[in-house]
Amino acid sequence: MNGAQSLVKTLLASGVDVCFANPGTSEMHFVAALDSHPDMRCILCLFEGGTSGAADGYYRMSGRVAATMLHLAPGFGNAFSNLHNARKAGSGVLNVMGDHATYHLQYDSPLKGDTEGVSRAISHWTRSSLSSADVARDGADAIRAARAKGGQIATLVLPADTAWGDGSDPVTATAPPPLHRASEADLDAAAAALRAEGAALLIGGAALHGPLMRLAAQVAQAAGCRLMAPLFSPRLERGEGTPPLEQLLYPVDANAELLKDIRKLVCCGTNPPVNFFAYPGKPSLPTPADAQVLELADATMDLEHVLNGLADRLRAHDQQISPVELTLPDRPEGALNAASAGALIARVMPENAIVVNESVTSGFPIVTATRTARRHDLLATMGGAIGQCLPAATGAAVACPDRKVIALTGDGSAMYTLQSLWTMARERLDVTVIVFANRGYQILRGELAAMGVTQVGRNAQAMFDVDDPLLDWVALAKGHGVEGTRATTVDEMEAALEEAMAAKGPRLIEVVI
Amino acid sequence: MNGAQSLVKTLLASGVDVCFANPGTSEMHFVAALDSHPDMRCILCLFEGGTSGAADGYYRMSGRVAATMLHLAPGFGNAFSNLHNARKAGSGVLNVMGDHATYHLQYDSPLKGDTEGVSRAISHWTRSSLSSADVARDGADAIRAARAKGGQIATLVLPADTAWGDGSDPVTATAPPPLHRASEADLDAAAAALRAEGAALLIGGAALHGPLMRLAAQVAQAAGCRLMAPLFSPRLERGEGTPPLEQLLYPVDANAELLKDIRKLVCCGTNPPVNFFAYPGKPSLPTPADAQVLELADATMDLEHVLNGLADRLRAHDQQISPVELTLPDRPEGALNAASAGALIARVMPENAIVVNESVTSGFPIVTATRTARRHDLLATMGGAIGQCLPAATGAAVACPDRKVIALTGDGSAMYTLQSLWTMARERLDVTVIVFANRGYQILRGELAAMGVTQVGRNAQAMFDVDDPLLDWVALAKGHGVEGTRATTVDEMEAALEEAMAAKGPRLIEVVI
Repeated sequence: MNGAQSLVKTLLASGVDVCFANPGTSEMHFVAALDSHPDMRCILCLFEGGTSGAADGYYRMSGRVAATMLHLAPGFGNAFSNLHNARKAGSGVLNVMGDHATYHLQYDSPLKGDTEGVSRAISHWTRSSLSSADVARDGADAIRAARAKGGQIATLVLPADTAWGDGSDPVTATAPPPLHRASEADLDAAAAALRAEGAALLIGGAALHGPLMRLAAQVAQAAGCRLMAPLFSPRLERGEGTPPLEQLLYPVDANAELLKDIRKLVCCGTNPPVNFFAYPGKPSLPTPADAQVLELADATMDLEHVLNGLADRLRAHDQQISPVELTLPDRPEGALNAASAGALIARVMPENAIVVNESVTSGFPIVTATRTARRHDLLATMGGAIGQCLPAATGAAVACPDRKVIALTGDGSAMYTLQSLWTMARERLDVTVIVFANRGYQILRGELAAMGVTQVGRNAQAMFDVDDPLLDWVALAKGHGVEGTRATTVDEMEAALEEAMAAKGPRLIEVVI
Repeated sequence: MNGAQSLVKTLLASGVDVCFANPGTSEMHFVAALDSHPDMRCILCLFEGGTSGAADGYYRMSGRVAATMLHLAPGFGNAFSNLHNARKAGSGVLNVMGDHATYHLQYDSPLKGDTEGVSRAISHWTRSSLSSADVARDGADAIRAARAKGGQIATLVLPADTAWGDGSDPVTATAPPPLHRASEADLDAAAAALRAEGAALLIGGAALHGPLMRLAAQVAQAAGCRLMAPLFSPRLERGEGTPPLEQLLYPVDANAELLKDIRKLVCCGTNPPVNFFAYPGKPSLPTPADAQVLELADATMDLEHVLNGLADRLRAHDQQISPVELTLPDRPEGALNAASAGALIARVMPENAIVVNESVTSGFPIVTATRTARRHDLLATMGGAIGQCLPAATGAAVACPDRKVIALTGDGSAMYTLQSLWTMARERLDVTVIVFANRGYQILRGELAAMGVTQVGRNAQAMFDVDDPLLDWVALAKGHGVEGTRATTVDEMEAALEEAMAAKGPRLIEVVI
């Protein structure tokens, strides 16, 4: 058994059985090893950003670490942006990056690069195997690292000769260290703060879906405080039957207004809120300057322990929560725009849909319209790096083959990683991609205005507008083997949505707004 | 004048007037500053790999540094792969990367990342401006760094408040330090070595085109030695009227065979040759173990001084070189394959074409067929990171609007940065893209075999084949606003090529082989 085989057996023995791959020559022995293990599901992505984004979406919906297979330094570079998003989401991802044979690294061959340097700029854990006998143990350590603290980015660099040389027996990854717990004193202080006037419980991470979310709602209700969620969440359960909560906002002034009465903010599963960007003359933080912000637990901590600790102190376990009731918007009249598109989506979204949202400027009306729709999970681009939606939708669909995935994306953001459409077609994934074609980086127009610039001249326009030539998303979908439709009216979009919801498999709807 | 304006004026005063841009919010003041300077040509790319690859192609054909505008850490990550290629090509590139305002960096906002870390993993020079008053000086230093040593990767990180705060007067970049020169002793030794039996002069970098290439040929002829070029070159002048030379090969055994009689190898403008990858039981170096390799000058040194020094010692200045004569292949008969496609391309390629070659497995027959075609420049993917062809062709076409650019790419490699098609259409660039659709990563099949694996199973096939679904390049071109044609026979390809050569502007030919 060579090193590569010892690694594949280690992955399988440790419960890692999905690999989003974009291999190159230096990974050939790993490919050969995977080839002899059909129980590993290898999913080819035509660009490395597809692999890392898919691993992120897969982790968010399954809680399981997937492997990515990446080529040397430049291939890892291509994965970087969606590793950034995965890192901010707290997703566990195991990157296997090939490298030149150890004895070849002394030479300046074309692909020689700073593999460890680029990895350390984004990974929580990086190790280069030094010999083929170490690969199994290093792989097990990498899996453990990817599973630690609720999910981390772990990167194992595999020089080619450590893959083809003699390996050890496979190693089963040990359990990650237990999650950190909040102290009793912190829990006491937090419980007291939640009872105070102007208090809010801000929940994030694992507290945003399932039983922990219900427990958090009980805690807030028992304390009589507001229950809030950050602007973006890795996985937010929403719609019918879920506890109502308030979500932070993107515009700095509106967000400050939302939080203006906050005196005590208890953060549980998230860091204290901070504005997405700084603007001249505006504060970095949306909370009032004199509010007390209690950092009870960030997303890497034991939230079950924290929320039970709060519930015990507040006698919250028997609270009855009035959940969100199903209320679908009326069928919209008039022009197709973000608001009417949102209403149409809310009306057709099936129970248990997974909505991956990166419709930057169109997103807000859609998120609003779907708040009381059928129960669904909403996945956001946690690191703000656009190009995450299609890859994450791919990974979510691999994780949950029985759930409809709806990928909402702007045309500008979809262009970064459009290659994922091909993987959706190849794997027959049940993803409906909705591209909002506003023909430009509309967010940047807003941001320029927020900076105080009101006149837009030739060069700025040249960098904002994507209308010359027009992107033809129906053709782009066809090019990747995905059926596409264009909708320019409410009727057209409704028909396209109904057809997509009734069918299984990937399709794309270009919504011209 | 704010910091951003001081930077734009510094760029223009220093002769940097092309900016390949993919801005985000943190770059808004830079966008606004560019907007008030229409003499800066801003070219929008829909993915950051397009910006860095374009800056590389632009530098190779113009010798001038272009700026890229990139968003924070993840945006830079997307540019990383083609910065790797640019670095290996010795191209000068100036990256302007935005960042959060200095006072905002203390918070973990979504886009906060290790901007300097990811930059240092690939850039020769990285600096974050500390205040708006420093931006002009930092920009001038960055330009100087990008121009040093024949061309480097220089990255200036611009926190948002250094862009919007008060700037200084613009600063004109000073000339880079003089290039290093070879010593007289090294030149004596190299001249003597070239006269010995089994000698070869291996030239690279700036010695591969124009007068220096002719001087190198005179030196080799006067010494009576072989004249050779590396496997890949940033810009290799070829075809009619150019001095004949031998090129190193990709396959390890064939390359060793080519070099087996070498006793003295003098490297001028390049590092000593090293195999692209290491293989079990095969050496890293293609040169015979007992050959003497003289590292006279790498690509960063003063090659004009070196070659003149050699020519003086060898009395080479009056040598008459018999240049390559124009010999076009016969019109091919039979099936369309890499060989017949190469013959067709060689027949139609106009004088002064710029050929950007990333047709990984189809490349060799085409490069062979075009050796005696009309004079042209051949640009290779220097760092081996695929996805460079379409961006580099974009940049080359911006640099040389009067020359026909022919981009040769495999379907696998074109998928990494297909967004560049849109920029070609938007800027009406005269690029003919030829996609060799072999429906897979054929190079990997060969590499797996070279590793000794002969059986290809389900998982390996899943990672090599791109035939389910088929990519439809005519549709992909249309989606990006580029006219496309599919050729499946010699007749169809000939007609498509003739039409493309007769017209101006971008088009794509999918060659099914």
